[in-house]
Parts: sequence; C-alpha cells; structure tokens
Amino acid sequence: MRTIDWVDGAVELIDQTRLPDECVALRITTVDELIDAIRRLAVRGAPALGVAGALGVVLSGGDPEAVARLRAARPTAVNLAWGVDQAAAWLAQGREAVLEAALRIRDEDIAACLAMGERGADLLTSGVLTSEVLTSGVLTSEVLTPGVLTSGGPGSGGPGPGARSSGPPVPDRADRGLRIMTICNTGGLAAVERGTALGVAQTLHERGRLAEVLALETRPLLQGARLTAWELGRMGAPHRLVADGAGPYLLARGDVDAVLVGADRIAANGDTANKIGTYALALGAARAGVPFVVVAPETTIDFATPTGAGIEIEDRGAEEIVTLRGTRLAPEGTDAVNPAFDVTPHDLITAIVTDKRVIRP
Amino acid sequence: MRTIDWVDGAVELIDQTRLPDECVALRITTVDELIDAIRRLAVRGAPALGVAGALGVVLSGGDPEAVARLRAARPTAVNLAWGVDQAAAWLAQGREAVLEAALRIRDEDIAACLAMGERGADLLTSGVLTSEVLTSGVLTSEVLTPGVLTSGGPGSGGPGPGARSSGPPVPDRADRGLRIMTICNTGGLAAVERGTALGVAQTLHERGRLAEVLALETRPLLQGARLTAWELGRMGAPHRLVADGAGPYLLARGDVDAVLVGADRIAANGDTANKIGTYALALGAARAGVPFVVVAPETTIDFATPTGAGIEIEDRGAEEIVTLRGTRLAPEGTDAVNPAFDVTPHDLITAIVTDKRVIRP
Repeated sequence: MRTIDWVDGAVELIDQTRLPDECVALRITTVDELIDAIRRLAVRGAPALGVAGALGVVLSGGDPEAVARLRAARPTAVNLAWGVDQAAAWLAQGREAVLEAALRIRDEDIAACLAMGERGADLLTSGVLTSEVLTSGVLTSEVLTPGVLTSGGPGSGGPGPGARSSGPPVPDRADRGLRIMTICNTGGLAAVERGTALGVAQTLHERGRLAEVLALETRPLLQGARLTAWELGRMGAPHRLVADGAGPYLLARGDVDAVLVGADRIAANGDTANKIGTYALALGAARAGVPFVVVAPETTIDFATPTGAGIEIEDRGAEEIVTLRGTRLAPEGTDAVNPAFDVTPHDLITAIVTDKRVIRP
Repeated sequence: MRTIDWVDGAVELIDQTRLPDECVALRITTVDELIDAIRRLAVRGAPALGVAGALGVVLSGGDPEAVARLRAARPTAVNLAWGVDQAAAWLAQGREAVLEAALRIRDEDIAACLAMGERGADLLTSGVLTSEVLTSGVLTSEVLTPGVLTSGGPGSGGPGPGARSSGPPVPDRADRGLRIMTICNTGGLAAVERGTALGVAQTLHERGRLAEVLALETRPLLQGARLTAWELGRMGAPHRLVADGAGPYLLARGDVDAVLVGADRIAANGDTANKIGTYALALGAARAGVPFVVVAPETTIDFATPTGAGIEIEDRGAEEIVTLRGTRLAPEGTDAVNPAFDVTPHDLITAIVTDKRVIRP
C-alpha cells in the first residue's frame, strides 16, 4: 500500500509509530484525527506531509479555522503548509475540485520521487550533468562538474555559473558499487512511494550500483532503525545501522562514498533544515571530502525564507529523550532539549537534487 | 561510596549497568569476574579501568595468563593496560607490595581528578595560564593564551612556543556562568571520585560558575542519560539531556560556552580516542568557534602511539544498537556497525587538561 492515499472517501495512511513491529493502516475522516496523526508522527516526511496537508483540506469541508490549524500542525517542514495552500486555493470551486487538486499533488509526488531517484543515481554514477545554481534566490544555468562533487568539499569554489568542465564521478569500483550514508527515513514512508534520498539508494540498488546503505538510527524517534532498516530489508538492499554519533567517524575512516539526506525546508540560499543530526554529517563529510547531497522535491524550496536563520526549528520536548517506548532512560525528572531539526549551511552542501534539476549551492 | 575500591580483601565496585534505576555494589574476588565486569561495562571510564587493572593483579595471585587476559579485556583505553603493568611490576615483591602499588594508583587517581578539576576550572574562567605544548611527542613550554582558547579555533595558528600574550577568558557572564557540553560519563563513576571532564564541571559548580551542563545521551549505552544525568542530579547542578545528533547544532546556535570531554587514549601528537560521537562535537565546536577541551590524567597519554591512526578502535557488535534494555529497536536480523570510540584529530582540540599541566596540541 501507499504511505498515504485517498481511499473510499477518507485518508488512509500507514501508522509509522507501529513500524517495524506491525504495518497497520489508519483510516482518517476528520481534520483533528489528521492533526493528531501528524503531531505524533504516524505520518511524517516532508513530501508525505504535503499530500497529508492537501488531503486534509478535503476533510475540512472548507472550515477556515480547521484549515489554519492543520497548516500549523508542525512548523518546520514547508511542504505541509504548501500542500494545504495548494488545495485550499480550490475551495471556492467546491469539494470535488479540492479533491482533484489533492490527488494531483499525490500523483506529482509519485512522479517527483521517481525523477529524483533517476537524477540522483545519475549524479552519483555518471559524468557531467546539466544543472542550475541557486544563489540568493536567483537561478542561473551551469554545468555541475562531478570533479567538484567528488573532491571539492566546502569552500573550494569550483567553476562559476556557465563554466563547463569534466571530471571523475563519485568513486564506484565496479566490484562493489557505492556505499551510501543516510539519516532519518527518506524512503517511500516519507512520501507516497519511493521517497527522496532513500529513493536514490533504491534506484542505485535497482541498477546494481549500491554496495551498502549505512543508516543512522536517528534518535530520539529512531526513524532510521525502525523505518529505513525496514524499507531497505523489503527492497533487499544491503544495509547496516549506525549510532548517530558514529556517522562522522565512519566518514573519516573512509567507509562512505556519499551522504544522501532529505530536507524539510530549503531556504533560498540553499541552507537546509533536516532531521537533527544532519548538520553533524555535513561537517563530517566536508572534513572527509565526501559528497554531501540533499534530495528533495522543488516544493521543499522556500523562496520566502532567504537563509536558514529564518527557519523555525520545532522543539519536541523532553519526553522523547528521557523515555523510549515506555522505558525510562534517564533519572526521574531529568530535563532535555530536543530540537527535531537542524540547519546545514549551504557551503557544506555539495548538491541539491530535486525532481527538476541539480542545484549546487 | 567510591566507584571502585579495595574492601576487606576484594574489589568492590558500583555496577553501572544498573544505574540510574538502582545503585548496587558488586563484590569481586576473581580475575574472571573482574574481566566480565569490565567487558559488560559494569565498571568503565579510563581512570577507573586503570584502578581496576591494578587491583585485578592483586586478585590474580600472580598468574601470568590471568594478568595477560585482564590486560586485554578492552583494547582502546590505555589506562587498563597501564594499571595492570604498574601493579604487575611488584609481583616479585609479593602480594602485599602489589596491593600497596594498586592502592597508590587508586589514591593518585583521586588526587589527579581533584587537580584536573581545579586546573580545568581555572582554564575556563581565568586569564593567562602556564602550559606546555605537546608536538610529536616533544614537550616544550609555552604560555597558553586564553584568546586562542576562546576564539582561535582549529588551524588559526595562535602564538608559537614561548609567545606570551593576554586575552579574554571564555565568556562567563557573571549573571549566568558557563554552559558546558559533554558526552558519555566522565564524572566520579568514570574514576574513583570526581572524574575528569565532569569533574571540571563539578568544580565550576562548586565555585558558582556553572550555568548548565548539556549532556549528550551517548548511544548506544546511554552513559550520558543514565550516569551523567544521575551524577549531575546528585551534585545539584543544572543540566539537560541532548540527543547525540543535536550536539553540533546546539553549538552552532550559540547554546554552549565550552565542550569538555574525557579521553580513553591520547596519542603522542595529541590525537584523542574517546567515546563515539566526540569527533562530531569537535567538528561542531571548531565550526562554531567554541573551545573544545579534553580532560584526562597524564596516564592516558600513550607516547608509544605516535598518532591516532595507531589506536585500535573496539567494535562492540550489533546487539547494542538494535536492542535497548531488552526492547528491539530495528527489524529482526538488522546488522549494525558499532565502533565504541572515535579519534579526534589534534588540530580540533583547543587544549588538553591533565593532572599536571595544560597542553595545546
């Protein structure tokens, strides 16, 4: 089944809080149920939240207060508000028009994930790719040189807009394929199907070019251990779990050919908000000279936010840190700080792969 | 009670696997029991392992095979082998001489931790400190300038040996004191009493100069959540837990005045092996311009190992990653890579505080 879909007059979605123990579908008929599912992360992932937002407008019956509450259910991912707005624009045309708009968003997400998988796999395994550069919200065309991708690292400059050159692709020894590191879950469970960063790994796997995925467990909610390992197991792709703190060290010791991550919001200058721990991986990749690639649909780019400093970061409270599935981890009364996301500055990002292009911030 | 001690003819130690739920003492009378306690981390922390190694030689009755097995029970921390060797050197003089040597190591550890706490707190709060520089195993005298410590960051150079200058100490607004970030447990539970990095925080707290400790939970075994939070609670010091992946982000957003960590082995060039996740904090501190300070006794410096590349890193296997206190976190059959330590290159380390001096790698 799809991660989220419209079935017989209701939203149906996989309750991701119960994975990997059981794969159970939730049937949701009201905005309040949907907001609850979003807040407790039964449905999560920026693209899936976009579809959830759009379908939620259908459930709202046009109630402006309900639409506003849904739009604000989680603050960091831009896609939720975007999906709500896209569908809400059709409210004057009636329920059927809203539903059609929402299903279009669903179908576009499926197509976008397929496109990102192809483009990302191409980027990692082939030579020169046509791309565009995003600079302070101004797009210009350029050729992305894989030489920059493989070894340029942050701050190394590389050719400016319009430059054209060739270079070696990411190292891909024919005998083993690529070793990919990723964080959180960015597979089919983060979208409708296939997903973003993990979708690229899936495409590499389908092409016989994936050696292994090193998946960070992604505390506090363990989306890597629970969801990404489950998806990789189902697709038959080799993978191992890694504690979050070990990511930069495995990069330093040469265990990884590329880091692929998703995004919850990309500012106009390329600064990227994503799951907490992403920034640490970007620092480790930069130091190790390993490409750090963000994979996200165009809808994740928020041109209204000039830099990462303008992105609101959700703090989800102490409970997720001090307990785990009912087990207390820390002494009674221990407080915690729990930012759900961090912001990776654009200079640490080798490339952003979208459904339409490759951007080099 | 002390973390580890010699009581009525046996080793007594706090079983740290049962904290924070209960504080239980183990009474150990054989080398095999001690090796088991070391391997399952009932006793851990580099200084405590040094004392455990020395006391273990008393239990061995001089059996060379038992002494060798104890010495190799864990490979990364140099202190274990060091403690064994120190005590074993007295075997020819008989059991009482060995015991006396082991108790000397215990008492020296207590004194060393006190000294590190004072010196570290001085470094963080006062002006110019006399120090020595460790370069490729060659020690030279120099004045450590706090200006370098506060804002120099890695690769910024700073004054060479013999240079003398003054500058501002680490920012310590009188109205709030210092905000310290740390990883793993480096308090009294990692030594006999008081500990290393957390001992510095304790001294700051006793001087009224500690605003808060941000303690990384430290997956997979959660020494931060279980042990450090417990110790900070007992000393009445303000603290909050943090998921490991959030450390670099909190540094980037300005929540931390200094990072303090322990060490399991320091190579002759200053490269430092410590709990997995330490390297990510060092990268984050360097990028944010926050001082990154290693606190460890002189006995942790391994002059026989020229650089971090020569330090063996223990991999503790998948089980610690895929399960937590009996709860399965990942799908059945998921594999993991689980390095227990990482190596922080010396250029990312602002200072190493020992019981004898301050070293600027």
